[in-house]
Amino acid sequence: MAGSGFESLEQCLEKHLPLAELQEVKRLLYGKETRKLDLPGAALEAASRGDFELQGYAFEAAAEQQRRPRTVRVGLVQNRTPLPADTPVVKQVTALHRRMEAVVEVAAMCGVNIICFQEAWTMPFAFCTREKLPWTEFAESAEDGPTIKFCQELARKHGMVVVSPVLERDSDHGDVLWNTAVVVASSGAVLGKTRKNHIPRVGDFNESTYYMEGNLGHPVFQTQFGRIAVNICYGRHHPLNWLMYSINGAEIIFNPSATIGALSESLWPVEARNAAIANHCFTCAINRVGREHFPNEFTSGDGKKAHQDFGYFYGSSYVAAPDGSRTPGLSRTRDGLLVAELDLNLCRQVNDIWGFKMTGRYEMYARELAEAVKPDYTPKIVKE
Amino acid sequence: MAGSGFESLEQCLEKHLPLAELQEVKRLLYGKETRKLDLPGAALEAASRGDFELQGYAFEAAAEQQRRPRTVRVGLVQNRTPLPADTPVVKQVTALHRRMEAVVEVAAMCGVNIICFQEAWTMPFAFCTREKLPWTEFAESAEDGPTIKFCQELARKHGMVVVSPVLERDSDHGDVLWNTAVVVASSGAVLGKTRKNHIPRVGDFNESTYYMEGNLGHPVFQTQFGRIAVNICYGRHHPLNWLMYSINGAEIIFNPSATIGALSESLWPVEARNAAIANHCFTCAINRVGREHFPNEFTSGDGKKAHQDFGYFYGSSYVAAPDGSRTPGLSRTRDGLLVAELDLNLCRQVNDIWGFKMTGRYEMYARELAEAVKPDYTPKIVKE
Repeated sequence: MAGSGFESLEQCLEKHLPLAELQEVKRLLYGKETRKLDLPGAALEAASRGDFELQGYAFEAAAEQQRRPRTVRVGLVQNRTPLPADTPVVKQVTALHRRMEAVVEVAAMCGVNIICFQEAWTMPFAFCTREKLPWTEFAESAEDGPTIKFCQELARKHGMVVVSPVLERDSDHGDVLWNTAVVVASSGAVLGKTRKNHIPRVGDFNESTYYMEGNLGHPVFQTQFGRIAVNICYGRHHPLNWLMYSINGAEIIFNPSATIGALSESLWPVEARNAAIANHCFTCAINRVGREHFPNEFTSGDGKKAHQDFGYFYGSSYVAAPDGSRTPGLSRTRDGLLVAELDLNLCRQVNDIWGFKMTGRYEMYARELAEAVKPDYTPKIVKE
Repeated sequence: MAGSGFESLEQCLEKHLPLAELQEVKRLLYGKETRKLDLPGAALEAASRGDFELQGYAFEAAAEQQRRPRTVRVGLVQNRTPLPADTPVVKQVTALHRRMEAVVEVAAMCGVNIICFQEAWTMPFAFCTREKLPWTEFAESAEDGPTIKFCQELARKHGMVVVSPVLERDSDHGDVLWNTAVVVASSGAVLGKTRKNHIPRVGDFNESTYYMEGNLGHPVFQTQFGRIAVNICYGRHHPLNWLMYSINGAEIIFNPSATIGALSESLWPVEARNAAIANHCFTCAINRVGREHFPNEFTSGDGKKAHQDFGYFYGSSYVAAPDGSRTPGLSRTRDGLLVAELDLNLCRQVNDIWGFKMTGRYEMYARELAEAVKPDYTPKIVKE
């Protein structure tokens, strides 16, 4: 069952396994243990009042002579849409703004420097419906839309970098839509935007009928707290996408997502974590929570009866480190804020140990890929 | 503790978790459940007499109208070196030949069509010593060395494809060494060879002082039972290596490895499985077992005292499927044969569902990578 009946893998293991076995199981599943952060009581109380989970973990690096620890706290937010999908658009957006305001308040109390919201966070994930109105009305300018202005206020107020994934309306280029993440610097200035590079044609994820593959390449944003990139949702299935962000220097790659249990849940702990390992960087996997119902029924291309809900978004947001260790996941069922303290020095340290960039042979692959995409390419198959 | 005190993750979970929770934990960890194979009693008895573990699982695919199920059974062998490393070379090789003969006999009883041994299977993994003799004496011709002849006999006797990873001595090109896998067809003919593309510079894996990066690209072998490729050991950390085998048409990619607990154990379940997901193919991860002691002491570049053993090879061989499901791992401590029945139709079925090849944008990446390797490349970094 891929629904809401099971709270979290970690809670289940902690409940049933004897301590010695639990430690060994955790080592095998999660690698080196992450230290639990001692979060302020006031933050924990505020989270409890706000009915969202609050967890905090720290990843440590070895001491160096020439660099001081480069410690940054990231915040990952997962949430359900607070209002039904048939509420007027502006009310839904406002309710989500209010919700994030409260969560970011708690993040600030926890010393978070960079916060990232979930994919298309100002709206229900309505692409399953294949209807255009009212859903495309959630789209807004990535430069001066109401959500960007809201994020700029948050950034200024808390001195926090805000990564805000939204449905973008690009009125300078024929009013087209994009799936975009805007990065707002801690000064409140819009640092730039990045677009989803790979668009799914999977199940109810009919996103390719709403917007196209991103045309901004793989930009990395130099923030006050470290170099970050945003690999939006379906891009996590594409190892080359992670790689190019990493080659451009990303130390933290956020992966704001929206994905449901029946489709991807056993892939979820594997892909972003593999990317952290393969690219010597931190990855932050964020998924929304709960079940979203839509006013009109739709079918899902699976021969089943028409229905009105998308399936169960299973949350389980987590952070993975370049050494392969990871935090536990947030709950499968509740809104939550995951705070992770990262010493970015770990990226170069692991790079020096494992050396995947040095041994990557990218010249060979650039050549082989350029050959492979030619229409007359013959795969290298040896026959008897 | 990364040693031999813990038998397997699966056994631990099965012992302690109530059934309903166990099922949910398995779904989250392993995806869709694999069916346990009903292996012949005689095979189980022979394995027990031979003191090795025997497990079997099946991955199923949906029925199609135009293709019949393309069922193949693969065998993954993990083993310790039976004789001490200071025994004469020829005796060690012969003992390993005898050991594999017995294992392959059982594999044949289980209907295995393609079998793969572990990396450099005819020798202890002696690269930690940085000594040349006697270890380079284990190298042999990939065309007509004694081990290839032995594998040809096995192949002919059992009508089985044999994948044999050996240290290769290439006397046609200046007597250099390679880390190679030879593919012997079920007819007994040598179908071809493939070489390790990425060589580690990690811990005691001083392999770069013995041989260089492979120069054979990414060949795929069309066997009687399906298209296979071999990604040797450290190549599993390189997503592009898996990708090119897949682009060339591999349906099953073997990953014969030798890796130790303290270094890689929490990465092990992630990487080959991620490759199966990302490339819509089956992957077979094979690791050796046990602790190998060497006659002379050596240091490990970690500031610790000189010692004579390499660390603990943790076995845990497994098969992962394109839908992200996987078998349990073989034991961390015992020799073993893992039999997996694969319906290769699953590869194209998952390809049609998830569409990573279709949405891969390889042209963009070929271009970006070609730029990125230039000495004067400027990473795409956005600054405030």
